Amino acid sequence: MKAAVVTIGDEILIGQIVDTNSGFIAKSLDKIGIETREMLSISDDKQHILDTFASLQNKVEVVLITGGLGPTKDDITKHTLCEYFGDTLVRNAEVELHVIALIERALGKSASQINKDQALVPSKCTVLHNQVGTAPGMWIKKENTVFISLPGVPYEMKYLIENQVIPKLVHEYQRPYILHKTILTYGQGESHVAERIEAWENQLPECIKLAYLPSPGRVRLRLTARGKDKQLLEEAIAANVKSLDMIIHDIIVGFEEEDTIEVVLGRILKNNQLTLATAESCTGGKIAQLLTSVPGASAYFKGSVVSYATEAKINVLGVSKELIDACTVVSKEVASAMAMNVQKMMQTDYAIATTGNAGPTKGEADAEVGTVCIALATPKGIVVEEFNFGQPREKVIDRAVIKSLEMLQKEILKNVL
Amino acid sequence: MKAAVVTIGDEILIGQIVDTNSGFIAKSLDKIGIETREMLSISDDKQHILDTFASLQNKVEVVLITGGLGPTKDDITKHTLCEYFGDTLVRNAEVELHVIALIERALGKSASQINKDQALVPSKCTVLHNQVGTAPGMWIKKENTVFISLPGVPYEMKYLIENQVIPKLVHEYQRPYILHKTILTYGQGESHVAERIEAWENQLPECIKLAYLPSPGRVRLRLTARGKDKQLLEEAIAANVKSLDMIIHDIIVGFEEEDTIEVVLGRILKNNQLTLATAESCTGGKIAQLLTSVPGASAYFKGSVVSYATEAKINVLGVSKELIDACTVVSKEVASAMAMNVQKMMQTDYAIATTGNAGPTKGEADAEVGTVCIALATPKGIVVEEFNFGQPREKVIDRAVIKSLEMLQKEILKNVL
Repeated sequence: MKAAVVTIGDEILIGQIVDTNSGFIAKSLDKIGIETREMLSISDDKQHILDTFASLQNKVEVVLITGGLGPTKDDITKHTLCEYFGDTLVRNAEVELHVIALIERALGKSASQINKDQALVPSKCTVLHNQVGTAPGMWIKKENTVFISLPGVPYEMKYLIENQVIPKLVHEYQRPYILHKTILTYGQGESHVAERIEAWENQLPECIKLAYLPSPGRVRLRLTARGKDKQLLEEAIAANVKSLDMIIHDIIVGFEEEDTIEVVLGRILKNNQLTLATAESCTGGKIAQLLTSVPGASAYFKGSVVSYATEAKINVLGVSKELIDACTVVSKEVASAMAMNVQKMMQTDYAIATTGNAGPTKGEADAEVGTVCIALATPKGIVVEEFNFGQPREKVIDRAVIKSLEMLQKEILKNVL
Repeated sequence: MKAAVVTIGDEILIGQIVDTNSGFIAKSLDKIGIETREMLSISDDKQHILDTFASLQNKVEVVLITGGLGPTKDDITKHTLCEYFGDTLVRNAEVELHVIALIERALGKSASQINKDQALVPSKCTVLHNQVGTAPGMWIKKENTVFISLPGVPYEMKYLIENQVIPKLVHEYQRPYILHKTILTYGQGESHVAERIEAWENQLPECIKLAYLPSPGRVRLRLTARGKDKQLLEEAIAANVKSLDMIIHDIIVGFEEEDTIEVVLGRILKNNQLTLATAESCTGGKIAQLLTSVPGASAYFKGSVVSYATEAKINVLGVSKELIDACTVVSKEVASAMAMNVQKMMQTDYAIATTGNAGPTKGEADAEVGTVCIALATPKGIVVEEFNFGQPREKVIDRAVIKSLEMLQKEILKNVL
């Protein structure tokens, strides 16, 4: 069973906003065995929308559309849907009551005519009620294809996908079986990993497809099995993951679909009842932010001191001014002192510290752009390294964040295994 | 002049990674007056790629392709390009030397055969040299359409777009004139803004198009003018921005294309020689991270204490245990104490503090999921508010971050204007 995801909005085509909706929708469809054949972003142009609908008609069973349902004049999806289906807009009483109540509750005022017109929907559609916003979702079938139109606001789209669209698709369609297994590796590049597993890759059965998903410092390997026999696919995946694990056990850090370095590290810390703090200069709080993006992080993450200015390193973290003058602020010595001091302040087992120059220009220190010192305070002492992560700024920050978490993970595993 | 942006890779179609490349490319094309007509994400499937190329042939002048150029077996773009152009792969000596040198320098080892094969390119293509990676870009023209294939790694793609693709397009094509102007507003919703500017919107000339780009707490208005006479378009935009400013002056915070709340706030702080620190609990360092994502933030941002655990609020920030016991950790009183204390520790003019429960479950405190208290320490005293940002977790955190920056901006403008 195949789907297409269509995003409508000029703001995406001029690159002003990044489309994150399509990925969420594709992931949700994938989980119930519906394959997204393509994603398209097109403009708020009636003819372009009509042509796109026609090109997908009967080629895929499901067309999921986001965007263009807002109350303002640049949003034309609803009118175009009517034209495509030879339909007219009618007022849905239930939606109108919901809109009036929502505006009253959220803003403490009466709904305007623009708000109330959110209740206008094509007469042939099934309304997908949106409890978290004013624009309803719409489900309209034409021949062998169902068109599902959702608002573009991410939280509203997610709500409708999870609570309305997926349950209705599961209920109304028979679907084949798709199984994914993701293996997260770190520390070696794509080519290197490919060379190590070449023989294994060549023996994979026809029903299993392998993909490499590289990102800074890590490579995800994704196995996808497609077919009718659920049990056979599960056995084939399990056997091949096992044999892969034997070949690259040293670089595998996780097997869960949602595994990221911060999730894996959090699990290790929690399972071993260990605690962590960070002292961040060039990473500006991004390590803390990544760690706390994981629900339940309070079990192991105590906090961070973001000492962006040199005076904050001295006044808040208690790094001595003499040390900074002698070694410069971007140095292994200062990183080590930051790590030790924050470990003590926050009373944790481990601490990470970063100091560096992310660019674009040289800062107070004389360190080259891209230089970052990362120190770990562990129960057994300090581990510290100096790196050059090149440029631009965002790459330096991202690589410093990932590298520091990798260093910590390696160090903890050394101590607890 | 029209373009299409094509992303190749199964990892996008199953939602495992979000495509940020297409947005960057569209933005870069837009700046030189090339309109991106559509963006497509398709699978690593030869026939699908060939069909897509054929469907775009002579419909757009430029097809920009990313992905599928890595060294591993799931990457098939290069072979498919050869099939589409009736071409064969040849070894490019210059690229091979570059690959060998790059691997030697970065990894201190000899390039493998897999690495060296990055130098295989279609014989008819113009090679776009990639100084920051091993996969070269390729430029091949067929009839009225040029196909430009780039690696999918964001830093490499960006390097090639900026240093090779855009200069070559500018050199080889005549382009019409496109002008954008973005107006950033905050504090009022899309419908409300639309009602206030309805009369103004109705009088806009034909050559100017208006779009609303809402995100939590703010609405961007984007004016786009298209035509041949650069001066006329510039005058039309300037006149309409001026008249708009007169209508909604109270909610406009910036006019630059790249304006975001953190950039605008940074500019206000810097221009008034004011400094800022943050004390973050539920936002986990995200305010600090957002502030320091702006180059030059060290001029006004001193640092942050991320006091995720209650004990960090007591031990590091010096909030009294009695106050926390009496008022609970998620309270206006604790937020106020956090803001005051971090303002003093970091010796800044202003400080932001957040404490709340982002969910998904209730934490140590009894506060409802979604409750966040935000306090500002200003030179004139404390400003504090309590909010409920609903759920899920990511929305609560994002809204708390944006709201705190908005509150601060409003407060500073009150004091400096």
